[in-house]
Amino acid sequence: MQPGADTPEAVVELAANVDDATGETLGHAAAALLAAGALDAWLTPIQMKKGRPGTIVSALVREADAARLSIALLRETGSFGVRRRAWERTVVERSHHEVDTVYGPVSVKLGTLGRERLFARPEADGVAERAAAAGVPFRVVMLAAEAASRSLLSAGPSS
Amino acid sequence: MQPGADTPEAVVELAANVDDATGETLGHAAAALLAAGALDAWLTPIQMKKGRPGTIVSALVREADAARLSIALLRETGSFGVRRRAWERTVVERSHHEVDTVYGPVSVKLGTLGRERLFARPEADGVAERAAAAGVPFRVVMLAAEAASRSLLSAGPSS
Amino acid sequence: MQPGADTPEAVVELAANVDDATGETLGHAAAALLAAGALDAWLTPIQMKKGRPGTIVSALVREADAARLSIALLRETGSFGVRRRAWERTVVERSHHEVDTVYGPVSVKLGTLGRERLFARPEADGVAERAAAAGVPFRVVMLAAEAASRSLLSAGPSS
Amino acid sequence: MQPGADTPEAVVELAANVDDATGETLGHAAAALLAAGALDAWLTPIQMKKGRPGTIVSALVREADAARLSIALLRETGSFGVRRRAWERTVVERSHHEVDTVYGPVSVKLGTLGRERLFARPEADGVAERAAAAGVPFRVVMLAAEAASRSLLSAGPSS
Amino acid sequence: MQPGADTPEAVVELAANVDDATGETLGHAAAALLAAGALDAWLTPIQMKKGRPGTIVSALVREADAARLSIALLRETGSFGVRRRAWERTVVERSHHEVDTVYGPVSVKLGTLGRERLFARPEADGVAERAAAAGVPFRVVMLAAEAASRSLLSAGPSS
Amino acid sequence: MQPGADTPEAVVELAANVDDATGETLGHAAAALLAAGALDAWLTPIQMKKGRPGTIVSALVREADAARLSIALLRETGSFGVRRRAWERTVVERSHHEVDTVYGPVSVKLGTLGRERLFARPEADGVAERAAAAGVPFRVVMLAAEAASRSLLSAGPSS
Repeated sequence: MQPGADTPEAVVELAANVDDATGETLGHAAAALLAAGALDAWLTPIQMKKGRPGTIVSALVREADAARLSIALLRETGSFGVRRRAWERTVVERSHHEVDTVYGPVSVKLGTLGRERLFARPEADGVAERAAAAGVPFRVVMLAAEAASRSLLSAGPSS
Repeated sequence: MQPGADTPEAVVELAANVDDATGETLGHAAAALLAAGALDAWLTPIQMKKGRPGTIVSALVREADAARLSIALLRETGSFGVRRRAWERTVVERSHHEVDTVYGPVSVKLGTLGRERLFARPEADGVAERAAAAGVPFRVVMLAAEAASRSLLSAGPSS
Repeated sequence: MQPGADTPEAVVELAANVDDATGETLGHAAAALLAAGALDAWLTPIQMKKGRPGTIVSALVREADAARLSIALLRETGSFGVRRRAWERTVVERSHHEVDTVYGPVSVKLGTLGRERLFARPEADGVAERAAAAGVPFRVVMLAAEAASRSLLSAGPSS
Repeated sequence: MQPGADTPEAVVELAANVDDATGETLGHAAAALLAAGALDAWLTPIQMKKGRPGTIVSALVREADAARLSIALLRETGSFGVRRRAWERTVVERSHHEVDTVYGPVSVKLGTLGRERLFARPEADGVAERAAAAGVPFRVVMLAAEAASRSLLSAGPSS
Repeated sequence: MQPGADTPEAVVELAANVDDATGETLGHAAAALLAAGALDAWLTPIQMKKGRPGTIVSALVREADAARLSIALLRETGSFGVRRRAWERTVVERSHHEVDTVYGPVSVKLGTLGRERLFARPEADGVAERAAAAGVPFRVVMLAAEAASRSLLSAGPSS
Repeated sequence: MQPGADTPEAVVELAANVDDATGETLGHAAAALLAAGALDAWLTPIQMKKGRPGTIVSALVREADAARLSIALLRETGSFGVRRRAWERTVVERSHHEVDTVYGPVSVKLGTLGRERLFARPEADGVAERAAAAGVPFRVVMLAAEAASRSLLSAGPSS
């Protein structure tokens, strides 16, 4: 279920160019797509015709969800069309760990590609909780967590 | 001619990354592609190599127009290359209606997907004309037209 | 406390150009400034030196909060400098109302400038709640709320 | 009326951060401000709170127009506030000329600062007309016009 | 090796959405991909989930390099996934020339599509060198070089 | 010479909105302003009139350099006007240190505000050199350097 470097998975990108929805609607549309199962959703500022600023509402979805989430994108944005196309995606293997910091324990995602440990990334939501509890900026706790995470990388050549 | 939810149409996206054209040229390039038959054309600000701000000039075109509009894109931007790839596009069925507002009649596009009425969108150019004639902001007339358009939606579950 | 068109209030804009913080940190910084009392906080994508994409972290704050929030901005972003300057700001008078829709009641903010009713804006958070409860897109409920709000505008020339 | 390098003029910048207007409305707002006498008007994509994409609607206006155009900005965007502050602006002296190209004559604006001829810029609208008449890309006619304009620069050290 | 209008070449686009890398890292990532053989690399500012500003790191690469550069992109950005898909690319035929200007000789790339000379573009790095040597702005030398290059275009209908 | 939290320094921001210069020219303009003594220079993508994508060329400069760098900005961009206004800027006190990593020593800038150590930032250029020498991504060396730098923060409440 976790494709590695040699087993890319097929995903689908959905996109619609929107110049007749507000920022509020666009923010909600992206959130709604994520809540409905999109792997990712994002907004790209563009310039559209007739001097209108616009936004591309994009989502990366599983093939099995493409039809359903296409309809969702149309409903959420009121766009008259949605386009889709396939990508191949390579994801690293992720394993979950925990590290200690002076602000408390923090969840860390370790990413491995084959035998190479690529990164050990503290999970932002957990870092935010520690920061709020300690009354310390997010940035500071993230730095502490990243430092504590480096030991997880030490088995591979990237450390 | 109006594919519905279950008959996606094939379209082609053309794109070129441009860091050696002015904003004037880029604006004209997008307009020229639309005038030449592109379904849509847009500009995306990006950062390119050597610290240069750049722009992706993109167009969505029918397959039959792809070769012709690729050449047009090269001519209009002076880019040394243009890339293209296919998308599948689902568009809602559109029907045209008119609604009354205190500013006069306004054309409205009703979008339907299967049996669901997704949106009733006043046409911006007509709204702009009413606004200019009434000496009232575009935004205000658009709100009035949207309110008047809601009756068109009432046959479907989205109202 | 609600300056009208002829009693602008003094506000201060804080800004820092940041190319050495992650998107996670920047998102948290803006949220932290708002939580700490900023009137508004926003992020502007820019291109900085040495080919680095960057972000201007900006906040609009009351004069009395400028020193405190300047320090907060430095702490949250790790920037080595923060700049500040004054603006005059005109805000419309805001009054709160409620309108009924088929999705339930929605709070609306009416904006008045002198004797002119400029807008009647449904509050997005409330619209989102109604949409979630009804299983209907945010956009659809917002349209219904805007239509219901128009009666609030009818006493002024903008309707 | 044409301040040179040593006689900067005072201008005012108006700005409002907008996340609840569509691209259509924003495009019309900028155009309306220009039509109403703004020296310049532009739109900057930003990220606002609650995950909403937004836009700063900005205008540069003469001091005498600041109050009037502030109200216009509020009306056109439906924003609840508009901020303003002064700038000093230095503009080059502009004189108008005409040059010949194989596509016909083109108007050119020569910019001078003190005794230095800074630029000779073909006017885009005229270039566009020649391009349309000749069935040639805007870019190509602009290059021809720029080449023909260089003789206007030859009296100064920048050639 | 230089496909013309009728022999498009296959290229691959790699992309990753990144919200947990700094501008410094992103700038280095794009540069590293170019140094490692990417045909092009660019950064697109986007808005990602949870109110985070993000960046799409994109690269255009030869098919034979796609696997290798996918790994490089993962290493350089620390992203947990990279997606890829094919494009067809049409490039103009490029030939190298030199033109004389008052600032010295400048290399120019002539782009031809079939029998049509599309553009004669002075190479920016060479223009920058002449400008630095002459103590003259890049823009001024580029204008001179473009004017001098027009003779290269005269054999085709675009002049 | 290093103003602290209570001795803000006066700086000047220069800006010009440009829609008639290429990305190459804009990149060179920003670099030229930095080389000529600007404290900072950056480019902001905007949408300008007539459907043209544009760029704000901005620089932060010392008051004593404002007139000279205003002229430079006009020369580099060919803009017909440049605006300027004052800001107050608070900068943290910076001291330089060196830390050891497995990739070699790295220069670090420690930022202090009053008695609070705000950040210990490894200098990007030095990190890039170590990364190139070790054949390791910039990101990885930066993480190592940041971890090594944390000891510099330990004397203040932010660690």
